[in-house]
Amino acid sequence: MRGFSERADVEDVERLLASDLRPLEPETVPVGGCAGRVLAEDVAARHDVPGFRRAAMDGFALRGEATFGASEYAPLRFEVVGEAFPGRPHPESLEAGQAIRIMTGAPVPDGADAVVKAEVCREARGRVEVQEPVAPRKNVGEVGEDIRVGTTVLRRGRRLRPQDAGLLASIGHAQVSCVRAPRVALVVTGDELLPAGSAPRDCRIVDSNSTVLAALVARDGGVLLPFEILPDDPERIRAALQADADVLLVSGGSSVGQEDHAPRLLAELGRLDFHGVTMRPSGPAGGGRIGESYVFLLPGNPVSCLCAYEFFAGPTLRALGGRPRAWPHRRRRARLARKLSSQVGRTDYVRVELRGGEVVPIATSGASILSSTVRASGAVIVPRELEGLPEGAEVEVLLYDEDSEPGEAGGDGP
Amino acid sequence: MRGFSERADVEDVERLLASDLRPLEPETVPVGGCAGRVLAEDVAARHDVPGFRRAAMDGFALRGEATFGASEYAPLRFEVVGEAFPGRPHPESLEAGQAIRIMTGAPVPDGADAVVKAEVCREARGRVEVQEPVAPRKNVGEVGEDIRVGTTVLRRGRRLRPQDAGLLASIGHAQVSCVRAPRVALVVTGDELLPAGSAPRDCRIVDSNSTVLAALVARDGGVLLPFEILPDDPERIRAALQADADVLLVSGGSSVGQEDHAPRLLAELGRLDFHGVTMRPSGPAGGGRIGESYVFLLPGNPVSCLCAYEFFAGPTLRALGGRPRAWPHRRRRARLARKLSSQVGRTDYVRVELRGGEVVPIATSGASILSSTVRASGAVIVPRELEGLPEGAEVEVLLYDEDSEPGEAGGDGP
Repeated sequence: MRGFSERADVEDVERLLASDLRPLEPETVPVGGCAGRVLAEDVAARHDVPGFRRAAMDGFALRGEATFGASEYAPLRFEVVGEAFPGRPHPESLEAGQAIRIMTGAPVPDGADAVVKAEVCREARGRVEVQEPVAPRKNVGEVGEDIRVGTTVLRRGRRLRPQDAGLLASIGHAQVSCVRAPRVALVVTGDELLPAGSAPRDCRIVDSNSTVLAALVARDGGVLLPFEILPDDPERIRAALQADADVLLVSGGSSVGQEDHAPRLLAELGRLDFHGVTMRPSGPAGGGRIGESYVFLLPGNPVSCLCAYEFFAGPTLRALGGRPRAWPHRRRRARLARKLSSQVGRTDYVRVELRGGEVVPIATSGASILSSTVRASGAVIVPRELEGLPEGAEVEVLLYDEDSEPGEAGGDGP
Repeated sequence: MRGFSERADVEDVERLLASDLRPLEPETVPVGGCAGRVLAEDVAARHDVPGFRRAAMDGFALRGEATFGASEYAPLRFEVVGEAFPGRPHPESLEAGQAIRIMTGAPVPDGADAVVKAEVCREARGRVEVQEPVAPRKNVGEVGEDIRVGTTVLRRGRRLRPQDAGLLASIGHAQVSCVRAPRVALVVTGDELLPAGSAPRDCRIVDSNSTVLAALVARDGGVLLPFEILPDDPERIRAALQADADVLLVSGGSSVGQEDHAPRLLAELGRLDFHGVTMRPSGPAGGGRIGESYVFLLPGNPVSCLCAYEFFAGPTLRALGGRPRAWPHRRRRARLARKLSSQVGRTDYVRVELRGGEVVPIATSGASILSSTVRASGAVIVPRELEGLPEGAEVEVLLYDEDSEPGEAGGDGP
């Protein structure tokens, strides 16, 4: 059996992965599906919003100056010559002494420059009595008050929010140019693996890595290609490594054992940039390139697989899709309930529970114990320079949850 | 024109909406698609994981006791009678003096109770020399070391993480019982509205609310039904209100103008629980029930629509799906760069920018200015009891973004 000739440090691998990475080229996305996507170009408004003067209130549109002096005791009268609804304008200009009934959002006709609110008016027999003066332009939304034609409304690199998508629709965009979502191929190998949905039997286990990875890829904005579990057969793995994908996640067969074909095949087909990392778990992780594709060798043990994904593949996937590389969930600072042992020269990814505001490391640290990541609230990273962290040390927990934190769950308001 | 007879306070509406709300009934979800869903029942393991003793290391499986006394200078010899790979066990029990070559994850045969790591062994001519003793059970994962059959691994109410989905796969679940995802119908009305993807023209505007709402519904775990924009026609709206949905979002036509049919129709078909809220924007918001369905009357102005969704519809939708009601994004405490005026008796939803760590209210406060929510970092809520907040006051910003905060974007690690 061969060993790792030289292990890389986590920071070196991170630097290598970040060094020449550019977001993927743009693709066109319908405006209805662009929320959550990353904008690939600046967007300028092609229309004023609104494109016409509109009532900001229900009431009567008229010339504001003509209401000066109106009061409850000396109301001023206007002839009501029509009405305007949103999308159904009054077709003519108003003359002096005329008003129209108008609804919020309706176009204000020429000849009017203000809307007097309904509450200070009395309408009867084709006339309206106005009991309060209204200044010109009052309660009238001007052309372009929301957005002026030509204004840059959104900048490239922006992760589009729901309201951004709405804004793009409102300025007449049917589609928008976004960073292409990375295509991800899973290459899951192992003679012992049964597909998810099977019951474990004999000495075969159910593949959990593809289920975990599929959910992580979706979280990070990737598009997962169809996949199947492969036997430990070099020819099958070789073919799978040539998938047309931006990122290949190889689960299993990544170490230095005689059935670990992936590192050799990666070196043959492309470039094995690193193999073996000074970290725990995920020590046997590796990675490289085949053409433009990023290939990650994720150890088969489920905790190692998750950890290697989070350190190396996740940030790469997010960055290819134009998102920030950083951990996508909340972080929380808290104190260690007991000391954490590590080793100088090795980065540790320690599953922890948050209990009573304290950080409790989970005792079972085996890389094969997936249930430890289910019990955990998140992970603490012990950097390579330290041989551990003492009880009481303040640490940063990378929380696993997207949801609000427990303390917020009962909160009020939106 | 009618006015609101009585406006409800935000807190009363929130209390009403929370009062008899229960998560929807369970539905069956394939384990591959359950991440992000909420578990409807406790799940116990039906199998031990692993279901067999497995090697935790590459090396040689043998009886540990037989290695006692081994050293580099006085190695102990074993006959190598075969090998075991994951999924490919050695078919026979080991006798005294025998060993097999074994890979991580492979079944440990009967007659062996330890794995001695490859690094302290020398193999030649069918024999292996062991240069270090190994204790019984060392480097052997016992049956059930990850999960014992019968253990409750996940509790109802849990929002399933990627690793939870993996765990469910590993214990042999093909599917899992989750809270049903709420079905949401959009009822978007307005003669002036053009569908998203159109260019605005004449005095018609492009509907942005359905684009915003569709993205918010997806964020909150709802399943959006197909929809179309309806004219302000009571019969069309009446039919649409009878959709088979858990939540109906009615956008437009919700106020008290003559074209505002939705409140009357809701009262006719079911129950108008509230109409008019002491808040700004979204004062004309309303809601009620038709059968089991929750109906929300969202004002047509885009900021009001967004705000009413976030206050009332969003929490309801999340709760129906079994998620926490609370604001789903990050919150951040910071100081106001200038004072915020409000009014006692009214809850204000103020769009703000975070600039240099300070909270800057956005001057344009019109409910029709969707671009204000695009410029904003989030919102500050000024509660009903206050007539505003002074410059320098510490406030909580409900951030609009799911992404990491800007300061974290360049961070290291996963």
